[in-house]
Amino acid sequence: MSVLPKSVEKVIEEFAKLPGVGPKSAGRMAYHFLRSPYKEATKLANMLLEMDEKVMYCTKCFNVSDSTICNICDSTNRDGTKICVVEEALDVVAFEKSGVFNGVYFVLGGLISPAEGITATELRFSQLKKRVTEIGECEIIVATNPSLEGEATANYIYDLFKNEVQEEKVSITRLAMGLPTGADLEYADQLTLKRALEGRRKI
Amino acid sequence: MSVLPKSVEKVIEEFAKLPGVGPKSAGRMAYHFLRSPYKEATKLANMLLEMDEKVMYCTKCFNVSDSTICNICDSTNRDGTKICVVEEALDVVAFEKSGVFNGVYFVLGGLISPAEGITATELRFSQLKKRVTEIGECEIIVATNPSLEGEATANYIYDLFKNEVQEEKVSITRLAMGLPTGADLEYADQLTLKRALEGRRKI
Repeated sequence: MSVLPKSVEKVIEEFAKLPGVGPKSAGRMAYHFLRSPYKEATKLANMLLEMDEKVMYCTKCFNVSDSTICNICDSTNRDGTKICVVEEALDVVAFEKSGVFNGVYFVLGGLISPAEGITATELRFSQLKKRVTEIGECEIIVATNPSLEGEATANYIYDLFKNEVQEEKVSITRLAMGLPTGADLEYADQLTLKRALEGRRKI
Repeated sequence: MSVLPKSVEKVIEEFAKLPGVGPKSAGRMAYHFLRSPYKEATKLANMLLEMDEKVMYCTKCFNVSDSTICNICDSTNRDGTKICVVEEALDVVAFEKSGVFNGVYFVLGGLISPAEGITATELRFSQLKKRVTEIGECEIIVATNPSLEGEATANYIYDLFKNEVQEEKVSITRLAMGLPTGADLEYADQLTLKRALEGRRKI
């Protein structure tokens, strides 16, 4: 005998598939809707349907977009010769919120990860090659996470444009690694300290 | 200039309203759908719509249900003279999973909380009174959380049935408080230790 109505169980199962959501929080989330006097579940449902229907990917940078060319790629105020390569669309949001970058982006759609079985063929490297060829002379800023996968992906990008780098058509840079603002040296891990020391700058 | 398509921002805002979900996790959740090659958002949307359409509340215990009388209230195998009063439907799930209780339930729909402005009138006390009157002689097991709100609600229930208790028609019990299985005495808080000592039993 099941305690929960089938329709509730299905929603809980579906919520539990979301990143960072376990069966307990999925239950809480489903019940949040059941407690509400308004048709909140219907509201979310309609928004999800609208998103699935309307969202497309920019054909230049593969960021999520309302149109075939996204606002950033379409803007005349951005420096199109600086292309920031990120793992996913959320990284673009992080950069844009900070307002520190005025170039364009390229969303790879993941990182190379032998452990998770993600190889280069599953990521948008051919599209990146094409995009860089279109731009011509440019700087590729590799902004992948400072993880094993991020390093592997950065190395792959370097190999991909080895010839262009030698011909001095393309330069490839990587985000600096070191101590984050507000960090406590005492608690910094070994690798971060190593990188901070390697990357030390004159003051 | 907004980075995100409006439809994605709306979904993120809606996810962020869920319990335990902050803006960052809401973003991750929305992007989970955008990354998926299948129409996963549509799938969840349809399940939410189905839930909003189909779910009703048992007219006896107010648990969520597929029908006007839930499986538990409808079952002939349950002891209808033991009524376990819980805060919300998820508590019923917890009891049923454990399989330790063979009575029926009553879902209050919340706890009395002056801090959150929830008074007795917003909870299902009149329905509880009606239900207990229907049953006649019974034991009310108050299974509210061991919190200030849970205590206040338990006391309110006691007052509500004071006459019935004096007439010995109704007995009211409360879940035992003490050390949970696997707890470490060293880390137990003062109140838990106090309750564990008060409730000590002969071995």
